Amino acid sequence: MTYQVGQSASVTKTITETDVYLFAGITGDLNPAHVNETYAAGTRFKHRIAHGMLSAGLISAVLGTQLPGPGSIYMSQSLKFLAPVYLGDTITATATIKELIPEKNRAVLTTEVVNQEGKVVTAGEAMLLLPA
Amino acid sequence: MTYQVGQSASVTKTITETDVYLFAGITGDLNPAHVNETYAAGTRFKHRIAHGMLSAGLISAVLGTQLPGPGSIYMSQSLKFLAPVYLGDTITATATIKELIPEKNRAVLTTEVVNQEGKVVTAGEAMLLLPA
Amino acid sequence: MTYQVGQSASVTKTITETDVYLFAGITGDLNPAHVNETYAAGTRFKHRIAHGMLSAGLISAVLGTQLPGPGSIYMSQSLKFLAPVYLGDTITATATIKELIPEKNRAVLTTEVVNQEGKVVTAGEAMLLLPA
Amino acid sequence: MTYQVGQSASVTKTITETDVYLFAGITGDLNPAHVNETYAAGTRFKHRIAHGMLSAGLISAVLGTQLPGPGSIYMSQSLKFLAPVYLGDTITATATIKELIPEKNRAVLTTEVVNQEGKVVTAGEAMLLLPA
Repeated sequence: MTYQVGQSASVTKTITETDVYLFAGITGDLNPAHVNETYAAGTRFKHRIAHGMLSAGLISAVLGTQLPGPGSIYMSQSLKFLAPVYLGDTITATATIKELIPEKNRAVLTTEVVNQEGKVVTAGEAMLLLPA
Repeated sequence: MTYQVGQSASVTKTITETDVYLFAGITGDLNPAHVNETYAAGTRFKHRIAHGMLSAGLISAVLGTQLPGPGSIYMSQSLKFLAPVYLGDTITATATIKELIPEKNRAVLTTEVVNQEGKVVTAGEAMLLLPA
Repeated sequence: MTYQVGQSASVTKTITETDVYLFAGITGDLNPAHVNETYAAGTRFKHRIAHGMLSAGLISAVLGTQLPGPGSIYMSQSLKFLAPVYLGDTITATATIKELIPEKNRAVLTTEVVNQEGKVVTAGEAMLLLPA
Repeated sequence: MTYQVGQSASVTKTITETDVYLFAGITGDLNPAHVNETYAAGTRFKHRIAHGMLSAGLISAVLGTQLPGPGSIYMSQSLKFLAPVYLGDTITATATIKELIPEKNRAVLTTEVVNQEGKVVTAGEAMLLLPA
């Protein structure tokens, strides 16, 4: 596979209560904002929200399965959590090659997650070692 | 709750095949490095490895459930993936308050994940809005 | 256990979002028709639908646990996917012995899955080697 | 996307105990051949085996996510279960276009699942309505 600056790929999923509850169980992040609707009603978000790292997981999916894809190695990721993802939201994670560093065989990608209304919920950058 | 620079908290979990397979399903990250042992045998890591974002999920757990704990809002996270986490590894995520910014009611925490041998697998920093 | 032509057995289950999401994760079939409600709204089915193979899994359940039951060996299955199964539908898989082949110790069963309105969603036939 | 006879695509996964146990729970197929190692020791297969429909699920994954991919509609599938899949086996499902029927916008694909030794565990054919 050859890579070019500007190249991008996406994955989309409707985030369900199932996703959030399994994610809570796997990570142990049972923060009431994620699993307690009564508590969540008293927060600024009014309802339970998905874990930010679940959205980040979709970034990992697009990087690991599409661009740069299998064989690349994840070196770093920055994440800004800009807006909540609610149970039932349909989110799209997009990775776009921002910079190629051929002498180190690395790529820098911008990574953005938007909801069904086009609102950016997570923004950041990833660096990966490209497949040999 | 009052916070002080240097305060820290941890969570520990043995990462199982179950965790990795469920995480793959939730995020859609079925990169063969995570779910194909035959493929993984040919990689530098020799075996299937856990998703980096699964380790990051334990960081989210310690931040969201212990320090700063429920009521805080996750603003940003940086992550460096420094070493692989294998199925069966026992990892500990620790968050330590590095800086308090009272005028904005924010805290910066260093976040580190180590394996059962004390090797740092993930390093980074988080910023959170503290509970009012 | 003795078998007779015409003998039948059934299993019934309400198919939930949880079932569909776990099935997607296990198989890797994250086709947007199953996990993206926004995408699904633009399809002929209007909503996310369950995987056809999930309905087929209920056929496997009735064959493997009831008729012919434990000890039989699944040799083949044909499947026609005739109508969608929506999240929340209650489906019943029924297997009926159509033919016994004593010299080979085999049975042919018709296998049908219907939804809560009696609509056939999946039809086909199975052949099994009977318990010795 | 244009399609050609002979075109093929694959998905590969190491099938774990987790996969088999979750599949058992989702479908209700708790046949002891799948979930009882003591019972399985007394069968011709000597160990617990994966559900045939789990292998079929990987066929569904390759058809639904790659070839023909999203937008196609699954019409029928035939399955011959030729050899057992054990927990820990790494299986590859491959779909190959055998015939295109342009006047009906359909494709017939051969579908085969092999294990890590190249042994065919499941063989059959699928018919799909292609994306408009």
